[in-house]
Amino acid sequence: MNKFRFLTSGESHGICLNAIIEGLPSNITIDKAFIDSELARRQQGYGRGGRMQIETDKVKILSGVRFGKTTGAPVCLEIENKDWQNWTVPMSVEPVNMSDPDIAEAVGSKKITRVRPGHADLSGAIKYNQDDVRNILERSSARETASRVAVGAVAKCLLKEFGITGSSKVLQIGSAFDEESMKKEIDTAKEKGDTLGGSFEVRFINLPVGLGSFVNWDRRLDGRLAQALMSIPAVKAVEVGAGVQAASLSGSNMHDEIFYNRETQSYYRKTNNAGGIEGGMTNGEDVVLKVTMKAIPTMKQPLMSVDIKTKKPFQAHFERSDTCAVEACAVVGEAMAAIILADALLEKFGGDSLEEIKKNYNG
Amino acid sequence: MNKFRFLTSGESHGICLNAIIEGLPSNITIDKAFIDSELARRQQGYGRGGRMQIETDKVKILSGVRFGKTTGAPVCLEIENKDWQNWTVPMSVEPVNMSDPDIAEAVGSKKITRVRPGHADLSGAIKYNQDDVRNILERSSARETASRVAVGAVAKCLLKEFGITGSSKVLQIGSAFDEESMKKEIDTAKEKGDTLGGSFEVRFINLPVGLGSFVNWDRRLDGRLAQALMSIPAVKAVEVGAGVQAASLSGSNMHDEIFYNRETQSYYRKTNNAGGIEGGMTNGEDVVLKVTMKAIPTMKQPLMSVDIKTKKPFQAHFERSDTCAVEACAVVGEAMAAIILADALLEKFGGDSLEEIKKNYNG
Amino acid sequence: MNKFRFLTSGESHGICLNAIIEGLPSNITIDKAFIDSELARRQQGYGRGGRMQIETDKVKILSGVRFGKTTGAPVCLEIENKDWQNWTVPMSVEPVNMSDPDIAEAVGSKKITRVRPGHADLSGAIKYNQDDVRNILERSSARETASRVAVGAVAKCLLKEFGITGSSKVLQIGSAFDEESMKKEIDTAKEKGDTLGGSFEVRFINLPVGLGSFVNWDRRLDGRLAQALMSIPAVKAVEVGAGVQAASLSGSNMHDEIFYNRETQSYYRKTNNAGGIEGGMTNGEDVVLKVTMKAIPTMKQPLMSVDIKTKKPFQAHFERSDTCAVEACAVVGEAMAAIILADALLEKFGGDSLEEIKKNYNG
Amino acid sequence: MNKFRFLTSGESHGICLNAIIEGLPSNITIDKAFIDSELARRQQGYGRGGRMQIETDKVKILSGVRFGKTTGAPVCLEIENKDWQNWTVPMSVEPVNMSDPDIAEAVGSKKITRVRPGHADLSGAIKYNQDDVRNILERSSARETASRVAVGAVAKCLLKEFGITGSSKVLQIGSAFDEESMKKEIDTAKEKGDTLGGSFEVRFINLPVGLGSFVNWDRRLDGRLAQALMSIPAVKAVEVGAGVQAASLSGSNMHDEIFYNRETQSYYRKTNNAGGIEGGMTNGEDVVLKVTMKAIPTMKQPLMSVDIKTKKPFQAHFERSDTCAVEACAVVGEAMAAIILADALLEKFGGDSLEEIKKNYNG
Repeated sequence: MNKFRFLTSGESHGICLNAIIEGLPSNITIDKAFIDSELARRQQGYGRGGRMQIETDKVKILSGVRFGKTTGAPVCLEIENKDWQNWTVPMSVEPVNMSDPDIAEAVGSKKITRVRPGHADLSGAIKYNQDDVRNILERSSARETASRVAVGAVAKCLLKEFGITGSSKVLQIGSAFDEESMKKEIDTAKEKGDTLGGSFEVRFINLPVGLGSFVNWDRRLDGRLAQALMSIPAVKAVEVGAGVQAASLSGSNMHDEIFYNRETQSYYRKTNNAGGIEGGMTNGEDVVLKVTMKAIPTMKQPLMSVDIKTKKPFQAHFERSDTCAVEACAVVGEAMAAIILADALLEKFGGDSLEEIKKNYNG
Repeated sequence: MNKFRFLTSGESHGICLNAIIEGLPSNITIDKAFIDSELARRQQGYGRGGRMQIETDKVKILSGVRFGKTTGAPVCLEIENKDWQNWTVPMSVEPVNMSDPDIAEAVGSKKITRVRPGHADLSGAIKYNQDDVRNILERSSARETASRVAVGAVAKCLLKEFGITGSSKVLQIGSAFDEESMKKEIDTAKEKGDTLGGSFEVRFINLPVGLGSFVNWDRRLDGRLAQALMSIPAVKAVEVGAGVQAASLSGSNMHDEIFYNRETQSYYRKTNNAGGIEGGMTNGEDVVLKVTMKAIPTMKQPLMSVDIKTKKPFQAHFERSDTCAVEACAVVGEAMAAIILADALLEKFGGDSLEEIKKNYNG
Repeated sequence: MNKFRFLTSGESHGICLNAIIEGLPSNITIDKAFIDSELARRQQGYGRGGRMQIETDKVKILSGVRFGKTTGAPVCLEIENKDWQNWTVPMSVEPVNMSDPDIAEAVGSKKITRVRPGHADLSGAIKYNQDDVRNILERSSARETASRVAVGAVAKCLLKEFGITGSSKVLQIGSAFDEESMKKEIDTAKEKGDTLGGSFEVRFINLPVGLGSFVNWDRRLDGRLAQALMSIPAVKAVEVGAGVQAASLSGSNMHDEIFYNRETQSYYRKTNNAGGIEGGMTNGEDVVLKVTMKAIPTMKQPLMSVDIKTKKPFQAHFERSDTCAVEACAVVGEAMAAIILADALLEKFGGDSLEEIKKNYNG
Repeated sequence: MNKFRFLTSGESHGICLNAIIEGLPSNITIDKAFIDSELARRQQGYGRGGRMQIETDKVKILSGVRFGKTTGAPVCLEIENKDWQNWTVPMSVEPVNMSDPDIAEAVGSKKITRVRPGHADLSGAIKYNQDDVRNILERSSARETASRVAVGAVAKCLLKEFGITGSSKVLQIGSAFDEESMKKEIDTAKEKGDTLGGSFEVRFINLPVGLGSFVNWDRRLDGRLAQALMSIPAVKAVEVGAGVQAASLSGSNMHDEIFYNRETQSYYRKTNNAGGIEGGMTNGEDVVLKVTMKAIPTMKQPLMSVDIKTKKPFQAHFERSDTCAVEACAVVGEAMAAIILADALLEKFGGDSLEEIKKNYNG
């Protein structure tokens, strides 16, 4: 991450989520409605539960944009937590008076000492020396990915100016590979109080040749994309092109033969096992990534765990509205990929204004 | 990468490979024989060809180490290219006199305009504006991974001081999953002039809880490991723990139940589908990663490609001694993982000398 | 900047200023009243004009803090721009309807094409391809330093836990070196519509030995402090210890002799020409920095400049309420130094919670 | 430092110095003779002692350059330490047999426990937990700046392609401001066994408008230059343009009025108090920096200090051949400034080959 830098903040039940993006060129059209529509996409998907309905996320752009266009200054985004009014006491930023029994009750009722397998709960509480696991899960919650989707939407606004667009599709939910079976599998899991994982594809098209580089390990685009996608909560695998299938393909079947079109004076391929990346660089074909998400760890089905205060075992089971969030995760995957590609584009073409980058790009 | 920084340099047929590592604490024992043994491991494996025999790599430590221990100063490593004496003219650093017919012949005979599918050749030549593809492939060659193995061996020297060790094993070659079949498959591919990919596991043990963090996307350990492993040439997939299998596991089967051992006063698991990482942090279990490598693109079996000078198609086939390099790739995978883990360890425990870090670590 | 990362955003007449801080350990007490008092200090000082009275800045902590303590999650700070309600149209984030004459008038009246010497105006407009200089000055304005003071106050909260505190004092205003003459000089300048620069000292005490390092250029603490201080708008010189006086001191007069106190078992100095930094590291003495600020470029006294639209010369003179802002700048200087020192402290001592860092620190 | 990354390594009496530069575009002409001439300039200057004659530094380019031009791959530079053959035992990388009395004697004779005021010695020994101060001073020695000069020469090769060139001149030595008095002052100091500091100017010309940026503190060019220059051993002050003089200039005298030349269609100034940088960006005028260097701490004149083993005081006096190194320091200053400017140029104009950057630059 050289040029498109960002930081996010915010808790699941805190006041709001924020993100500051630094390094954007000027004169990029930032479409608030588009960011909102991306946030909405993240909240949809078969198998999502109740909270998603509460939180119809809308972005508020606080800086860096004037009359709908970036100025080159950092862009600050804010997404309100609609549920905040119910959490002002237990999530208070300021110290609270714990000798007031109402306050003590409000705080105590939200305190958590029972750690969930599959979550940051236990390691986080040890690392940050917390006896209330709430101080961990409020930030490790997937709610944080809303900020990423908003940032990714800004990255997409930049990419769009160059005709580069991204999309995603769910490939697998549990053991199901088509929409009908997926729904059925989700319904069954929901009844059992279980949860499901799955996999999805992220695809970006119209990329120029030569984003990323082979000259140093940390400039390889596939590595940077892998980090970005693996950093999404619950993701356990990232594949490029043929991915794990590459293990069983011989060289003569794996590699994408190169052809030249004399009319358009450009190189092309008939296959894309490389997933658009060779030598850590885009090769002009679609960038195709596959991501596997594990099942959500918060569920009604009981799992053995330990109370970190008493050290006593208990059967972890939690009311949780989501059965499957693979569709939402795919939207986050698009966002993270867009961020990396925007960064790589800015790195390659330089420039401080859209006009300058376009000139460099077309040069 | 916060603390353990490094850069590598060097071409496949240049003078030598180098690496500078910055951020090492003082008083770490650096065992040259161990680094050499790691370099030797990278050169072995069934299915490797002739060049590997020429190049029995040995490291030369040029700085940062005195009487076998680090001083805190940057460590510079050098690995000679044994073949360099045959390449002094075509790989000359200085300009050469191309009007001398012998020199022109020596340079011309090594010039490459026929790009290989599956390599950095075409995108690299376009990106760096080169008409001689040698200027690309000399650096994009897997020879560069020797530097990484040397750097990774230094990282392992640091980890070893804390009882943390790593290993790898080949899981699959082509369609074969046991050693006998793997060898047979390699023999067959070799006869046909084809090449094979495969997959391997990298495992690190004895890690403390809490390396990495969930608080910001780029601090998640799984993301950082994914980048490091995906950045290895030819790698197309990285998985953590259950990896792609997680797609078909329900929540109740996926997550590793938590238990507490009152005697050792520590938490433990009976399963490790998480691969030792929850919430982007180590959870104290083994870190288990699976990596898929595609087949080597340089092979005798013909593939269609284009000459970038004439733009005419040709049938790419190259004499290449390696049929399969998955075993070597696994050693590189260990090295890259070791680098990330060493970095995360230094980040968490701070300290400038081994003694200080140990004190912090044990605290 | 390894561990204490932050980004700021916000325009002078936009909705608000924001900052996100990433890398804070948990369990640091964050005192909102203290941050506010630092913001108030930045707004004071003899020679400040009217706007400072409007904007009695108060911080709003949006995340990363619960019950007055950090959780390890990113901290988001917000400072409202009190004047925003008067700027909703000309500083609108959303596109506005310029065919509406009221809106066109509101926007047009704030448009600027006359660039001020000494400011980012001209270079910024060229760099970011803007015909309205407002798109530059809104971010290049010194208003942005309010965010830095808020971030610096958080850094001070961390340092305070280790007994490390900072302060500043004005050394010179124009040609005056004592308070009486400074005030007189400011009064005179104000009458003439001129502005004044000056210099100030920033001092931090109780620092441990060994923050920073000599092993690589970018880890030297003096360099990192110099960047942080020189990055404050209008700063033209940064000195450490004897600073520019070092040019005329011989070696026997410059260097601080070393003594050892057998009772406290510690080294000490009787002089501090080094300013507490030798070899790019703290040496245990006070860190003493001197910073020179140029006079504010916005003033009534006319300066020749050019209208970037018409390319015609004009006499730049602006109504501006501040005559001298050296006192405010000193507060910003403290903040930037605190940020660097907090970063260096975290780098040296590692640790994720205050308790862990304290243990490492005292070890 | 976004794009032009580098690491250096090497000890004063070790095998050699190295540097790896990453991020260079391809097709830059790298002139070895020019690098050598820069290294020679660093070794000259009135007041330098004997060692400089031994070490006529020559660079060896180990990678990243073919036929005199960069390929885009990392460039590794090496500078031999001519004195190494006399230090193979006391500076051995490998462990030595200390039970051999000859070896013990060779090592012991070079062991240092008496720390020099003004150096990294004491803080370094504490930080890195060393009882032999040699393990500190070998790296903290100004010898390391030879690597920086070599790296800076490569940066100059890049800048040269755009007509950007740098130079330096000594302004002051002790209390002397002209060459005659400087020499006299050096002679006197030498006789007394004392040392002298001074100051110098670094100037770069022909810079484009808009390198650096005001939008985030760490992108300001003045800050980045200040870090780079303050990171040079012995530097105690960095000034831009009017520098410390700015404290006493009123706004009407400080700021550089802006004019427009209708013929060349460009803006210009008649003064340059800004030193070529406004709002953290180049404004098209010469970049003018002033740097103050303290006197060399190693000298015959006695200073009180402490033996870190015995904790007993002693009178530090050392045979040292250099009386004054300001001229050499100025060459290092040029190098560091060149590195920052090259980085800022690559950041602004992007591009992977010289041809692409030139196109962007001229666009």
